[in-house]
Amino acid sequence: MTGIERLSLNQKTVNRCTAPEAIDGCLAAGVPAIGLWREPVQETGVRRAAKLVRDAGLRVSSLCRGGFFTAEEGPRRRAALDDNRRALDEAAELGAPCLVLVVGGLPDGSRDLPAARQRVIGALAELAPYAAERGVRLALEPMHPVYCADRGVLSTLGQALAIAEEFPTDRVGVVVDTFHVWWDPEVFAQIERAGPRIASFQVSDWITPLPADVLLGRGMMGDGHIEFAPLRAAVDAAGYRGDIEVEIFNADVWAREPGEVMGTMVERYLDTVCG
Amino acid sequence: MTGIERLSLNQKTVNRCTAPEAIDGCLAAGVPAIGLWREPVQETGVRRAAKLVRDAGLRVSSLCRGGFFTAEEGPRRRAALDDNRRALDEAAELGAPCLVLVVGGLPDGSRDLPAARQRVIGALAELAPYAAERGVRLALEPMHPVYCADRGVLSTLGQALAIAEEFPTDRVGVVVDTFHVWWDPEVFAQIERAGPRIASFQVSDWITPLPADVLLGRGMMGDGHIEFAPLRAAVDAAGYRGDIEVEIFNADVWAREPGEVMGTMVERYLDTVCG
Repeated sequence: MTGIERLSLNQKTVNRCTAPEAIDGCLAAGVPAIGLWREPVQETGVRRAAKLVRDAGLRVSSLCRGGFFTAEEGPRRRAALDDNRRALDEAAELGAPCLVLVVGGLPDGSRDLPAARQRVIGALAELAPYAAERGVRLALEPMHPVYCADRGVLSTLGQALAIAEEFPTDRVGVVVDTFHVWWDPEVFAQIERAGPRIASFQVSDWITPLPADVLLGRGMMGDGHIEFAPLRAAVDAAGYRGDIEVEIFNADVWAREPGEVMGTMVERYLDTVCG
Repeated sequence: MTGIERLSLNQKTVNRCTAPEAIDGCLAAGVPAIGLWREPVQETGVRRAAKLVRDAGLRVSSLCRGGFFTAEEGPRRRAALDDNRRALDEAAELGAPCLVLVVGGLPDGSRDLPAARQRVIGALAELAPYAAERGVRLALEPMHPVYCADRGVLSTLGQALAIAEEFPTDRVGVVVDTFHVWWDPEVFAQIERAGPRIASFQVSDWITPLPADVLLGRGMMGDGHIEFAPLRAAVDAAGYRGDIEVEIFNADVWAREPGEVMGTMVERYLDTVCG
């Protein structure tokens, strides 16, 4: 059985909260872990946020996010890689075990998808030693194919694993996010293959119709079409013992009172993910 | 080289045209083939539409569409299968070599994706002998994963092939539609695997941002992110010699004057698909 002891609030679920507010929210709701985002953490200050999390006794399950390094060689790519190094510094200071990587879409005007995918490997090769020095794992997140052109050219767990497997297991892992992978006919086989490569497990639901902004298409568990328990069981069977983050991008959820959202989150998590 | 001699107008691209208007449009634009849709054909009358196409000397590349047979056993499933038999009768009368199948999404209230996928196999087993009697091939269309919940639970070409391969090649084939498969890291390998299973090749582009109604998210070739020539070359190398249908669901395209749309279609087809 999995209960609230593995639940993590991804900060994006309470998007209008500051980092201190999100931390307080976890304490109030009995949620023992938090997935942090760089922008609100920077607003609070990385050092202060790290201290607040430590003082609250919360685990940090991940830092979101790095990546966006599919540009061709040149100043944009260099800037992206530098920014990823800063993100790794922040993750280390925050005590985050992994940095979630959304790799980026096709560069503007390019239709060369194989080349963009190849550049992901090059970026990882540059970042992996730096990440290892800081004790932070790079966590490749395959994205739902609806985002292939403009957000993430890694489209399946199998594809992310094929890339991750070029690196040591403790340096490069993968994110299993139900929203991104639920449709994949290979998902259970690939979760089994992933085994110790699973660096993060995130949950949110696939709702229909998709809202006009597909970035905000994620639903609270139970509001959509995903059957969570078999995916959670598969991730468990693969040996993952880490936190389970609830990460919801949704304008309606964001409009609600954050404490209420966290209450619903706990309830739905216990019903659908643990149930 | 491939030129206009393999180009087919899928009727959906000129959505406001009647079947006779679409046929006239093909003649005016020098397009030698047409992919028909059941609804406008029924408005014209199947027999009359069949005669018009024959008299015009056009090939019929496909009939769209059958499928939507993922319901659990009961009256809805029976009605769906009966409707597919009628579609096969129509395809035979129209001289269409294949019936394109959009298999359907999750039944209302169900989250059992593996079961819905399994029911696709059962439906094909029922329909395949009927289709063979009428000389019409069933053409399974894997759909972009954005439609998995509500339109089509077959999400990859590999998955469609695994199902098709349970049946004789001449009875069950697959549709390769660039819009649905372009993102798939396995697409070239699966096109090669498909070989003589390719029953139809359809093209339209992936545009961003997606419009609010994702069903209307397809763009004219060249307006989006897909590199068509390598996909066309792969389909050719797999042995496909049939027509290449341009099928565009897009409110802006539909608002334009159909003759102008067809002119653009021919030009873009030659530039991007044949180029």
